[in-house]
Amino acid sequence: MAGLLKQVNSPVDLKRLSLEQLPELAEEIRQFILDTVSRTGGHLAGSLGVVELTLAMHYVFDFDSDKLLWDVGHQCYTHKILTGRKEGFKHLRSSEGVSGFPNPAESEYDQFTVGHSGTAVASAIGMALGLAHQNSDRKVVALVGDASIVNGVSFEALNNLGLVKRQLLIVLNDNSMAIDATEGAVARYFSRVRLSQTYEDLRRTANNILEHLPIFGKGVEEVIGRIKKSIRMVLPASQMFESLDIPYFGPVDGHNISSLVGLFRGLSELEHPALLHVYTRKGKGFTPAEEDRRRFHSTGPFEQEGDEIMPVTVPPSESYTDAFGSAMVELAEQDERIVAITCAMCHGTGLAEFRERFPERFYDAGIAESAVVDIAAGLAKTGLKPVVCIYSTFLQRSFDQIAQEVSLQNLGVVFCIDRAGLVGRDGPTHHGVMDTGFLRMMPNVLLAAPGCKVEVRRALEFAVGTDSPVCIRYPKESVPDGELPKGFIEACNKPFEPGRAIVLNSSKHSNLAIVSYGSVLPIAAEALERLKASGIAADLINARFAAPVDRQILLLHKQGKGIITVEDHRCSCGFGSAVLEAICASCDTKAPACRVKVIGVPQSFIRHDSRDNELETAGVSVDKIVSAAKEILGK
Amino acid sequence: MAGLLKQVNSPVDLKRLSLEQLPELAEEIRQFILDTVSRTGGHLAGSLGVVELTLAMHYVFDFDSDKLLWDVGHQCYTHKILTGRKEGFKHLRSSEGVSGFPNPAESEYDQFTVGHSGTAVASAIGMALGLAHQNSDRKVVALVGDASIVNGVSFEALNNLGLVKRQLLIVLNDNSMAIDATEGAVARYFSRVRLSQTYEDLRRTANNILEHLPIFGKGVEEVIGRIKKSIRMVLPASQMFESLDIPYFGPVDGHNISSLVGLFRGLSELEHPALLHVYTRKGKGFTPAEEDRRRFHSTGPFEQEGDEIMPVTVPPSESYTDAFGSAMVELAEQDERIVAITCAMCHGTGLAEFRERFPERFYDAGIAESAVVDIAAGLAKTGLKPVVCIYSTFLQRSFDQIAQEVSLQNLGVVFCIDRAGLVGRDGPTHHGVMDTGFLRMMPNVLLAAPGCKVEVRRALEFAVGTDSPVCIRYPKESVPDGELPKGFIEACNKPFEPGRAIVLNSSKHSNLAIVSYGSVLPIAAEALERLKASGIAADLINARFAAPVDRQILLLHKQGKGIITVEDHRCSCGFGSAVLEAICASCDTKAPACRVKVIGVPQSFIRHDSRDNELETAGVSVDKIVSAAKEILGK
Repeated sequence: MAGLLKQVNSPVDLKRLSLEQLPELAEEIRQFILDTVSRTGGHLAGSLGVVELTLAMHYVFDFDSDKLLWDVGHQCYTHKILTGRKEGFKHLRSSEGVSGFPNPAESEYDQFTVGHSGTAVASAIGMALGLAHQNSDRKVVALVGDASIVNGVSFEALNNLGLVKRQLLIVLNDNSMAIDATEGAVARYFSRVRLSQTYEDLRRTANNILEHLPIFGKGVEEVIGRIKKSIRMVLPASQMFESLDIPYFGPVDGHNISSLVGLFRGLSELEHPALLHVYTRKGKGFTPAEEDRRRFHSTGPFEQEGDEIMPVTVPPSESYTDAFGSAMVELAEQDERIVAITCAMCHGTGLAEFRERFPERFYDAGIAESAVVDIAAGLAKTGLKPVVCIYSTFLQRSFDQIAQEVSLQNLGVVFCIDRAGLVGRDGPTHHGVMDTGFLRMMPNVLLAAPGCKVEVRRALEFAVGTDSPVCIRYPKESVPDGELPKGFIEACNKPFEPGRAIVLNSSKHSNLAIVSYGSVLPIAAEALERLKASGIAADLINARFAAPVDRQILLLHKQGKGIITVEDHRCSCGFGSAVLEAICASCDTKAPACRVKVIGVPQSFIRHDSRDNELETAGVSVDKIVSAAKEILGK
Repeated sequence: MAGLLKQVNSPVDLKRLSLEQLPELAEEIRQFILDTVSRTGGHLAGSLGVVELTLAMHYVFDFDSDKLLWDVGHQCYTHKILTGRKEGFKHLRSSEGVSGFPNPAESEYDQFTVGHSGTAVASAIGMALGLAHQNSDRKVVALVGDASIVNGVSFEALNNLGLVKRQLLIVLNDNSMAIDATEGAVARYFSRVRLSQTYEDLRRTANNILEHLPIFGKGVEEVIGRIKKSIRMVLPASQMFESLDIPYFGPVDGHNISSLVGLFRGLSELEHPALLHVYTRKGKGFTPAEEDRRRFHSTGPFEQEGDEIMPVTVPPSESYTDAFGSAMVELAEQDERIVAITCAMCHGTGLAEFRERFPERFYDAGIAESAVVDIAAGLAKTGLKPVVCIYSTFLQRSFDQIAQEVSLQNLGVVFCIDRAGLVGRDGPTHHGVMDTGFLRMMPNVLLAAPGCKVEVRRALEFAVGTDSPVCIRYPKESVPDGELPKGFIEACNKPFEPGRAIVLNSSKHSNLAIVSYGSVLPIAAEALERLKASGIAADLINARFAAPVDRQILLLHKQGKGIITVEDHRCSCGFGSAVLEAICASCDTKAPACRVKVIGVPQSFIRHDSRDNELETAGVSVDKIVSAAKEILGK
């Protein structure tokens, strides 16, 4: 570790440095992040972009008592480094190290564990109102990116900023991500503003703001009035925010630390909410990341040799996402009704090839998981077959729209729910362990999950051929075909039929059936082998559907077989719960004892780790199935 | 029925009338709505406000093939009257009559069954994109109110309007509802625009637009350019929409039919999306409703004598909402940390007295169910005790924020979930039958439901005294204290303890326990009596909590008692499902046969009706409990 950074273990240490030393510290931090992430993987480009901004904020505010709120939060590495967590970076995003997102359990400098877009302004409003009740003058700062501020939650919050009658600073970190990703109006607006600014304009704007900022507590109207008088606004950059009654300052250069420090000092004295628009460069200081910001938004470990960047880990074998992407292209060739729609996750959800092949049948709505479902419902209403691709954790934002616009109307919208289950390194905010539960309450909605590659295609083929809503869930994981007996894969290569499971192993002599839902199939299959080795026969069922539940499973229960359900979803309201409900609803009172064990994610938050470790921690494991089997059989 | 309206049974009939006859028809329709709603109750003021607007739209467009999308949709009465549903108005909102919201099952003129705010623009975008794919030139029109357009879903859609490269008309029905209800920035903006306009300005604006509208297909930029040149904009009314790249026309008078017809004719020819800002007067033509728009937003049956309006039905006895409102005031007097926050539902959620008593501790965020939860989380983070009051059906919009900002952080936010369960006349879009399911997947969250008046206060007292999230659900219903034995009410007058039920009746000789969750307690109590009369002894448990489930219930099961759970929530993922899961997780394999029956709302949409009829239809009834009991006991 280089010189200055070595001395800095807390914001107090930072404040001991002179303003002139900060650019040097910034470079050291940048190198530290680069070194770390090249070993551990992580969100690189975003964090590199806000090094100066983070230093300037911590130089001015005291975030042990002032409140700093991150939006999404993947860009918080500098903040973590400055707040005593340098050591934890050795194992960034591993169970022994710090997480990749803000987390109050790690540090008092973090307010909320975050990970979803658009929450910071609303939480900041709440904190500002709370502090006002307590007559506290602690400052509140919310840092929001340009791709995130367009989210509906953000907008609802901006619309309510007027509730706050005291200081609250929103820092809009504009790295022009939004315009790359989507065609949204706000993104275009930011882009127009950006194009109209020269570097000289930014400097002049900053100087003008600085000149007129209050030393102490001057009203925001007065300040803005004086600034307006003295500078020619190159473009009405403030137009959008003015129409929302939000005092707007900027845009300014987000890499000029001393100017930022001055701005924060002044703006922190305003007695009203205000927004500072800051330009930063995503990936700043690391040329490969500046040039390919998408690739380095979130990266695995890599090595650098000259201009060459080489991934350290072998690229994973085909993932569920890849399998879905190929199936989409194949099916879309045959069926012109198929259109795809996603929320700033074209690559993440495997739609890149589809977009290339069928640009006119691809829509990216930006981070707008609520509206996108209604757009899809409208598409379906006209006879098209929209496939909505959203990560499980973000689909939580679509609950009400799926309920009203899709389930209630019984429209043939397909939901391809990627990152379902435990997601690995991103941890609790990104686990997708509630989708089956919230979706299976909705009438008309069919829920399916593939257990191997061929089933991804089969499930999608079924979904696009069905006139009702169909949801397909799968994880961020390699397809497990190598781990499964060939016979299983052959048995799975059959069309999906609503509520029909695939029996992969059955025996008259068994007193037990393992019922697997989705990607946990290899775990269930291995448990079957382990039980066999101990002389215990069991049936193995690949459930395929959580709604409706196959009546075969109920029949096995009626025959007196013990049932073990396995899934990568919270036990409450999940697939196993659906089996319990179905058994209860169908079972006459003379049926044998209810011997069902539900294996899934428990009622707690599974800490960031590798996905395999997380599954183990959650108890979604071969061992757990084997011991459940022995318990049921009284062995 | 008066002369013109008698002849009009479809939009085709309407188009046979001359433009000059339409104001007369409008008056007849207004009278028809007034006559109907005074008998049946319904959403009066909103519907009276858009009579001319609806007539003008139907006069110009052909909505059997053109697409009209309603936002919220409670203002659709004129539309229903014009589209062959006059007869159904005799029994408006009863099972034999038409529903109070658009419904494609009633008419091909309705696209979506709606009821929640902010969905129309997104659905319209989807339909416009779908029609473009099919090279159809059918027109798409979305009608959105000023209180609804501020919702996050709406904003996400407006931000994505640029996806559409063909005609799509948004009609902004500005009856200045938003500004009455909330302090939102958009509402203030609309209000500033409104204040700057005279009637003369509106007329001039309309004329100017009309002059420059294309006869056929002219580009929107050209039209707007010419209009801008020719009129002096009184205030930059277009500023907000311009910054979102949305071509804006208006504001114009929404009660001038002939001018509206001209505007729609011209705007329908534009080959791009556009927004027409229309001023209407909520309650128009019925003085009491114009003067008290809130009272007549949704009203019960009433009689008019001179200036006096008298409700026909006796005001209901104290409702759960009233009981909650009183408890809030009482507890807030003792505990300064308590603040209340709602979404444009101060009266509906019973907070009117609280707001009056503690204005500085009351927040209304407008229709912003997502952001409001994050605001509450921020408040809780500073040590306050926010009580969030949202109807169950609208809380579906808060799922992701409750999961991330409240459950994951384990913050002491209280959710008072009004209109939980079947809601009566408003029907499927308003039933709140999924809250227990989606909330009980979230770690740290306690779920409670009162079964009588005293429990409302006890539950709230518990919630505000708890450091974890607590949700309390109750229906739109009178508290049932008169229907319950006094002993039960006394037994319920005890503090809530997490996961502790109240045993209301128990017997060593019984082989059965009825376990009631929440407001269905009187049904369960009556079933107990009925069973007793048939010589069947049963225990009666008032569960109080759905999360966690009282272990007493599991114990009864282990003792071999049959269990009947009763709730006003969908069976899937509900309270009964939680009991099943708990039994399954705790039960050793030697436990007696699983004899549990879950009684709740089935997996279908219960049609609009009285709440009592709806419960009967759903099978949440005394009969159902009694027959389940007999089935379990083999009688």
